[in-house]
This record gives sequence, structure tokens and C-alpha cells, in this order.
Amino acid sequence: MPEYKAPVRDMRFVLHELLNLDEHYANLGLEEVNGELIDAFLEEGAKFSANELAPLNRSGDEEGCHFDNGVVTTPKGFKEAYAKYVEGGWPAMGGHVEYGGQGLPSSAGIAISEMTGSANWSWSMYPGLSHGAVATIEEHGTPEQKDTYLPKLISGEWTGTMCLTEPHCGSDLGILKSKAEPQADGSYAISGTKIFISAGEHDMADNIIHIVLARLPGAPAGTKGISLFIVPKFLVNADGSLGERNGVACGSIEHKMGIKASATCVMNFDGAKGYLIGPENKGLNAMFTFMNFARLGTAIQGVAHAEIGFQGGLAYARDRLAMRALSGPKNPDGPADPIIVHPDVRRMLLTAKAFAEGGRALVYFTAQLGDVVQKAKSEEERKEADGLMALLTPIAKAFLTEAGLEAANHGVQIYGGHGFIREWGMEQNVRDARISTLYEGTTGIQALDLLGRKVLQTQGAALRNWTKIIHKFCQTNVDNQGMQEFVEPLTRLNKEWGDLTMSIGTQAMQNIENVGAASVDYLMYSGYITLAYFWAAMADVAQRKLAEGTSEEDFYKAKIATARFYFKRILPRTAGHKGAIEGGLDCLMELDEAHFAF
Amino acid sequence: MPEYKAPVRDMRFVLHELLNLDEHYANLGLEEVNGELIDAFLEEGAKFSANELAPLNRSGDEEGCHFDNGVVTTPKGFKEAYAKYVEGGWPAMGGHVEYGGQGLPSSAGIAISEMTGSANWSWSMYPGLSHGAVATIEEHGTPEQKDTYLPKLISGEWTGTMCLTEPHCGSDLGILKSKAEPQADGSYAISGTKIFISAGEHDMADNIIHIVLARLPGAPAGTKGISLFIVPKFLVNADGSLGERNGVACGSIEHKMGIKASATCVMNFDGAKGYLIGPENKGLNAMFTFMNFARLGTAIQGVAHAEIGFQGGLAYARDRLAMRALSGPKNPDGPADPIIVHPDVRRMLLTAKAFAEGGRALVYFTAQLGDVVQKAKSEEERKEADGLMALLTPIAKAFLTEAGLEAANHGVQIYGGHGFIREWGMEQNVRDARISTLYEGTTGIQALDLLGRKVLQTQGAALRNWTKIIHKFCQTNVDNQGMQEFVEPLTRLNKEWGDLTMSIGTQAMQNIENVGAASVDYLMYSGYITLAYFWAAMADVAQRKLAEGTSEEDFYKAKIATARFYFKRILPRTAGHKGAIEGGLDCLMELDEAHFAF
Repeated sequence: MPEYKAPVRDMRFVLHELLNLDEHYANLGLEEVNGELIDAFLEEGAKFSANELAPLNRSGDEEGCHFDNGVVTTPKGFKEAYAKYVEGGWPAMGGHVEYGGQGLPSSAGIAISEMTGSANWSWSMYPGLSHGAVATIEEHGTPEQKDTYLPKLISGEWTGTMCLTEPHCGSDLGILKSKAEPQADGSYAISGTKIFISAGEHDMADNIIHIVLARLPGAPAGTKGISLFIVPKFLVNADGSLGERNGVACGSIEHKMGIKASATCVMNFDGAKGYLIGPENKGLNAMFTFMNFARLGTAIQGVAHAEIGFQGGLAYARDRLAMRALSGPKNPDGPADPIIVHPDVRRMLLTAKAFAEGGRALVYFTAQLGDVVQKAKSEEERKEADGLMALLTPIAKAFLTEAGLEAANHGVQIYGGHGFIREWGMEQNVRDARISTLYEGTTGIQALDLLGRKVLQTQGAALRNWTKIIHKFCQTNVDNQGMQEFVEPLTRLNKEWGDLTMSIGTQAMQNIENVGAASVDYLMYSGYITLAYFWAAMADVAQRKLAEGTSEEDFYKAKIATARFYFKRILPRTAGHKGAIEGGLDCLMELDEAHFAF
Repeated sequence: MPEYKAPVRDMRFVLHELLNLDEHYANLGLEEVNGELIDAFLEEGAKFSANELAPLNRSGDEEGCHFDNGVVTTPKGFKEAYAKYVEGGWPAMGGHVEYGGQGLPSSAGIAISEMTGSANWSWSMYPGLSHGAVATIEEHGTPEQKDTYLPKLISGEWTGTMCLTEPHCGSDLGILKSKAEPQADGSYAISGTKIFISAGEHDMADNIIHIVLARLPGAPAGTKGISLFIVPKFLVNADGSLGERNGVACGSIEHKMGIKASATCVMNFDGAKGYLIGPENKGLNAMFTFMNFARLGTAIQGVAHAEIGFQGGLAYARDRLAMRALSGPKNPDGPADPIIVHPDVRRMLLTAKAFAEGGRALVYFTAQLGDVVQKAKSEEERKEADGLMALLTPIAKAFLTEAGLEAANHGVQIYGGHGFIREWGMEQNVRDARISTLYEGTTGIQALDLLGRKVLQTQGAALRNWTKIIHKFCQTNVDNQGMQEFVEPLTRLNKEWGDLTMSIGTQAMQNIENVGAASVDYLMYSGYITLAYFWAAMADVAQRKLAEGTSEEDFYKAKIATARFYFKRILPRTAGHKGAIEGGLDCLMELDEAHFAF
């Protein structure tokens, strides 16, 4: 596989030409963030990703993390790359200015996250996990907590974690058991076992700040009895220096299918000193404040693996000679034709390309919504953006990670048997991608969130806000001859989406289990239509650029060709998902649990 | 993951109740093969698989094969298990009687292959690969070659390989470069490098007999200049004892995504002594004689991984407690409900179950066709079975391995984050499954074989023979009230299949590249309809058993419920594939190779 090259031209297309970032930031009163600044980030980020991170991707996978008596050592070069990342000031991009951050809106770093993640997903998880801790402390911490922890978390000298999962519960946090006993000094003694803690222990930073979910004595059962605590690996002295080691230790690291260079830790809290953050028993609410950002962070992983599947597949498809085109030799002087002449190889390449570029548009757009939620001047704008982000986030997270996994598999498939061999790197892309549909809420959990909470619990209002935007786009282009191939199917499906939702809603009123029966097919169906909107919108931009006249004709024509491919070859999948949804609930529930196997 | 338990009851259902094996063998004049004998095999095979092979599956994956200076050592326990397999007489089931085999038709061992493969696919490849060598020598060898090699290959004392692929060519064997120079003694000096040679070198058997594709001096270019040679690792003396080491050596073994306990070897032939088998320059034709069997062997892998995904997923879904059913607690005394109460978990389980059981029916049926091809009394029967087998084999190979990979992924998904952890075994199932859509001809190659060679080159005759069988089944059940839910959609799709094929054929006459554009979606479409036929046929059997009265009501009702699930929730995918096919060729070819990325 060739080294990763960040698709800077395409990122600029999405940020500037599709999403008009200058206008977006100006509307939010963020004139200091502009295209020039973002472009400078893109150039530097592309270099850092290609030069520092991509070269460590396969070696990190081969070496993995080492665990020895509570100490975790990351693969060769990881620590040094992280030091350069901190030195470059990258971790501080989004942090509050008063704690040393650059105060940039969260969308400003989205392309950088994509680049570092595409180059080396395992590595990118170490700084990535800090975001949750920073956001939690920024939002819910006392002034003292902020002063103590934020500056070094924002600079990257320290890293953070989120400690949610326990051996017996992941998605069902209501049954978690970790305990917090109040101490005389106002702190709490935290005890319990947390698992699947990414970056829970490592050798990159001087201190690790854990945000831990635990129960106070006598707390209500279920999700309403969970509180949040700050538990540092090393206690912090009043002068900011590191004090004694806290009672939290890594018990082991997991042996996993992929992201092997990311340390996935079992963390044992044994009366560790913790500090309550936010109100008692409201810990889960506090978590929701950054849940959308964390999920969007995982949506990026879908884009990243699709991009790698595409880039790797393309290089091989141009290089590998096998068979002749059915219509006759295209490389008559060679022993065979490059496999990119074969329609089915192109189908796989274009699928990966359509998911990567379409997913990029969806993720970056959703990140802009996040800016609006955080920075908009009017409450109305904030509320609208919040509703839309709430709807699009589970789609982006689950649909794009499923699409990324599919694209990663196409990358392997294009290589034939060679795709199965480790040295080519394509199989690692599949193994690394495989986690993305599982963590931060599985596809099934996202689908319940989308259909149950976001769509049906709002009586369809959140969905209507989105289909109205699509409808308006279609209306605007109703007389645009060049856009008919996109506008017609999109108009039809946009309406069908509403009808199908109504029908599911009616059934759910009779039996709520219909929600679970429809959910994953509904999420995929929604994802295909949502991506179709972004592809149509991108085709529209490209057609306008071509009409205006441009020196980059090939780029814009390729955009339109990819949109066409998406509409003709990918979007028909909606029919399969619609049919499956209409297959209903009964056939899922009929079989008694005891009779699944004999 | 629980240890593998062979689904003997389901295998008996397919073999006896669906496929009437006694009648099948009697029709072929093979009265010595009967239900009692096959049932005895099933019992013994289930024990061997569960007791000897399954326990080595994960340890074999963790340890992998060792390579040291040309010597390959298989993981701990593999050699001993193979010795027991030979001692039990298993390798000899299908071999010719005059060379020590039991002379059983190839279908007799199909369930055993499924069991050993499900328990431990890597292990099963060592004996599995011998079949190709045995079949080639049985079919094309001289009496002397048969006497020299067959007895020990059939007993399992020696194993065999097929050496086709070279670094620059896999599917495109026409450009292979290995050379065979005639020697004064009538043998040939074979030189060249072969890659991806499964079981090319190992420590299980005293000798390894390679069947090698190479070119004679002055041979025509392309596929018409390829000859077949027998190249033993150790030359065999006139008295049958092992002589000197031949000039063939393992240069290295591949580091792979999965099937890590199966040695995938680079084999260097350095003037190795080889013996021509079959006529000069007709090597590729000779290969085709057993190609269908090898591909059917890989189709079994799809069933095996689907079965493991299902068994593992079911055990966890019954055991793991998380969330409450949307309609209220089903396990009110526990902290949460077992996840099998959730419709979406059931959807994943039932998908895996439907692929495993439906795939079993398709594979065993196709294996019976293989018996007819080999043993039928009339040329007409042979010809008809041969045509049908030629049509169904690429469907079975490609569709079932794609389905097996999907089911293996459902197995992981049901486990949530735990599915990604090696100790549970579910991620290994995905890694091991991943090779199955690549080797023995990728899904793309199978799809071209199906649509190009089997369907269009016969002017649809081969397809019509199959759709007629489906049509006849539907007609027979046209007044059977209980079968309408299956017969109606099957009738409709069976007709649609013909129409869609006609339409592709028409387009292919205008531009042959339309074949490649439609091929993979066409293959998947064909697979879903073919499996629908088998599910309808199984539901029919089950309904008759229930009507007759049975002590196994639950078993037959589960069969019908699974058929219903398949028709309602899986079969609608045909609409997506049909839509994609109708999306056509142009959108695949429009983009210039240079403009895929900027």
C-alpha cells in the first residue's frame, strides 16, 4: 500500500466550496477563523500525517502495545510522534483560550482529525480521547478543577480518558457498579473495575486524567444514580506539580482484532481519590453534552477507512496487470491490462470513493452544526442546529462506519489474495475499521437512538427539519436541467422516507417492538438518502463551477461522475432496506428462544 | 465462544428429508451407500470435530505456523490431530477402491468437510488440499503414476498441493512463467516460483506431492500452453520407499489476516524433477475437471463461518444481560434482559442461521449433482447435472462466502465490544472467513464465470434448466395454502430473474463490458433467489412433517419460522441488486483512470 496522502483538494472542496466556511464562521462572529487559517492547518496537518504518523501505522500494528506489571509501553515511535504533535500545538486547537487553547470552533479541527486518523487510527486515539475529558471539565468543572486540569490537558502534556464501561455493562450504563464513598476532605474514594478504556495507561504523557462514572452511596438505581468523578493517575499538588500515585492502575490490556497500537485497558480503581464533577446523580446527563462530538469523532473513522481502502485500492488497480478487458486489450503492449479497466474493479473503487467523499461532506457539515450549537447568537439557531445534529449524528456514526467497513473490504478485494497478506496493509484497514461499528454505541444502539429517540419521540419533527432542507434543495433545482438525474430520485426518496417513517410510527404505536425491528434497516436507508443529498449538492457545486469556467475541469467532472455513480449504483440499496423494514417484526419474534438451535 | 457442536440434526434434515439420500444413491446404483452409513459418519465426524479439532482452533490462530530455513512447523497439536484423522481412515472416504479408498461418492463426505472446517478451518485445509492432487492423478495419471502416488495420498500418509499462482498472476494463469525442460530420462526439470501454496510445506506427512502448472519450451502463449506436472517433495523409489529430496523448497510463509495455522507457502522450484501428467499444453483443461469440486469446497467455508457466527452469537445472546425489552422486562428478576429479547439481535442471529442452514442445503444439493456427474447411468442425466452444477457452483462459492463473511460479522456485532477481543473467538471467525471470497477465484471472477460463461454463453439454457426446477416446485405448490407466503414471491422473482437476464444479455450484445458491470450484483441477486428456493423447499418438507404428525414439532416449526424470516427480511435485498444492475455500465466507465483522485 502506498503511504497515505491527505486528500487536501477534496477537503478544500467540501470546506470552501460546499460548506462556505468563511461565511459560516463570519455568521457565528468568528472572523478570526477563516479560509486562509484553515488552509494553513490543512497543509501542515497533511505533512504531519504523511511524515510522522503514516510510517508508524503498520509497524504499530505489528508491534502492538506492551503490558508489564501495570506499565503500558506504546509501539516504537508513538511517543516521539506524540511529542512532536504537542510541540506543534495541535492538541490546543479547540481548547478554551483562558486555559491556553486557541479557542477554535470544533469544526476547525475536523479535517485534521480525519488526516491523523486516516494515517494512523491507533495513534490518533491517544490525543482523541482527551477531547472528552477536556469537554467535560470545561462544561461541568469548578473553577478550581478547570485551573488544575485544563491547561495541561489542553497543551497535551497530560491526556484524558472516559471510564464508562464495566465488564457486565457497556451500552446499559444503568446497571454499572463502581462506587464512590465520600471522604472527610470532600473527595471520594472510587472503587470498581472499568474495561475497554482506550489510552487508560500509556507512556506518552506525564499524567492521565480519568473521567469516571460511579455511584454514590444510596444513589437511585439505574441511570439516575450515576455521578461523574475526576480521577487523576497522579494526584496534583496545590502548586500544580505531580504528587503521589493515585489508587488507579491498569490491570491488563486487551488482545484485539485491530487498532492494536491503541492500548485498551482494564482499569482497577481501588479506593482511588476522585473529585465530583457536576451535580450528584446527574453524571449521565453530563456525558450527553459531548456524546455527539464523540460519535462524530467515530464517524470520521468511517471516512478514514473508506479513504484508505480507496487510496490503496486505486494504487493497486492501476499497477496490477491481469486479464484483458472483455472488449479487447487496453494495454496491448503489456502482458495483460491493468485491472482498473474492469468494470467490477471500478465498481469497488467508486464505492469506496463515494463513501469517503460523501461521508466527508456529511461529517464536516455536522461538525459545522456543532459550531452553531456552541456559538450561535440566537437561541433559535442553536436549537435548530441542535435538533439537526441530534438527528444526523447517529446516521453519521453508524452509517459511515458501516460504509467504511464495506469500503475497507473492497480495498482488500481489489488486491485479490494479496489483500489477505499483512505486508500490503489492506487487511489491517479492515481490522482497524471493525471496531468502529462497535464502540461509542454499536450500530444497533445508534439505530435505536435515531428511530426511537430522534425521529419518533419528536413525532417526526427532527426528521422533517432535515427532509425540508433536502426538499428545498430539490425545489431550487427543479428547473436545472443538468441536475435532473439527481433531483428526481432524491425528491422521490425524500418523500418515501417520510411515508415510510409514518408507517413505522403507526406500527410502533401498536407495538413498540416494531422500533427495534425496523431500526438498523431504517438507519441504513436514512444514511443512503442523506448521502445522496450531499452527493447531489456536491454535483450542483461542480456544475456551477464548470459553468463559470475553471482550470480544474477534470476535478469537477470527476465529482459529477462520482455523484452519478452513487445515484445509479449505490442508492438503489434503499429498496432492499425498505423491503426488509416492511418484512416487519413478527418473523423476528416468532421463534422461541429455546428453538433457535437443536 | 462455546466449543463448536456439529449441527447433526440439521445435517440429517438436509441429507435425508430434503435430499432423500437413500433414493439418490440407489438411483446411481450405489446401494452400499445409505442413510445408516452416512449417519454413522455424522456421529463420528461430530465427535472428532468437537474433541480433536475445535480445541485447536484458537490456539492454532494464536501460535500460527513457524518457518525456519525451509522447514514449516504447524501449531501445537495439529500433527497429532492429523495422525488421528489418518488412523480413523477419514482421508480415504472418497478415494478409488483399487488404491485403498472407500470409493464413496463425493457427496458422502460433504457434511464431514463442513464439520471439520467449522471446527478448525486452518487445520482442515491440510487434508482438504490433497483432494485436488488425488482427483488430478485419478483422472489424468498414467497407471504407473497412480500406483506410485495414489495409495499414500488416499491413506493420508502423504498430502498433496495444487501449485498454480505466481507472484504476477493469480486468476490470469495465461501469463504464468514457470518452465518445464524435458530431460533425457523422460522427466522434466521444473523451475519457477509459486505463491499462495496452501500446505506447500508442513510437518504432518512424510511426503508432499505437488501438482504444478508450467510451460514446456516453445509452448503456445496464454492458457493453451500450460502443462501439468507431478513434483514430489521426496522422489519415490521403484519400491515405493522415499528417495532423495527433490529440488523444491519452501522459501517463506505468508503473514496473513487469518487462517494463520494454515501454512501459505512460497514454493521455489529449482530444476525440480517433475513428471508430465495428462497431455502437453492441456493442463488448464485438466484443472477444470476438479475446479467445481474445489470451489464447492470453498462454498462449505461460507456455511462453516455462518454456522460459527450463529452458534457463538446465540450463546452470547442468551447469556448477556443488557437493557430491557422496549415492551417491558422479560427477565424482571434479573438486572436486565438477555439480549436475545431485542428484535435487532434476533435479526442478526436469524440472518446467520438462515445463511448457514440455507447454504447447507445448496452445498449438499450441489454435491449430489457432482455424484450424478460422476456416476449417473445415462449420458443425458450426466449432462443435465453437469450443466446445473456448472451454474450453481459459482453461486455457491461466491454467494455463500459473502454470506458467511456477513454472518461472521454479525457474530462479532452481537458481542458488542467483546466481539473485537481475541479471547472470545468471534473476530477470528471474521478473519478466517475473509479469505473465502478471495481464493479459488474471487467473487468478481465467480460472477464473470456465472454471468458470462454459464448464463450468457449458453444463451440462458443453463439458467432456464434451474429456473424450470424452481418453477415446477412453485407450480406443484400453487394450491398449497400454507406455502403461499413462499411460493408467491418465489414465482415472481423466478420470472424476474429470467427477464433481468434477458435484459442484461441484450445490453451485452451491444457492449460486452455490460457483463462485468452487472456481474457481482447479478451473482448476489441469483444467490438470494437460489437460497429462497431452498428455504421454500425446506419449509415444504417441514409442513408435510407437521401435517403427518411428529414428535419434533419444535424443530419443524423453527424451520418454517426461519424460512419466513428469510423471505421477509433477507430476500428483499434482490431489489437493491436489481436496481444497481439497472444503474448500468456508463457510470462505471465514465471516469478517466487519471481522474480518480486529485
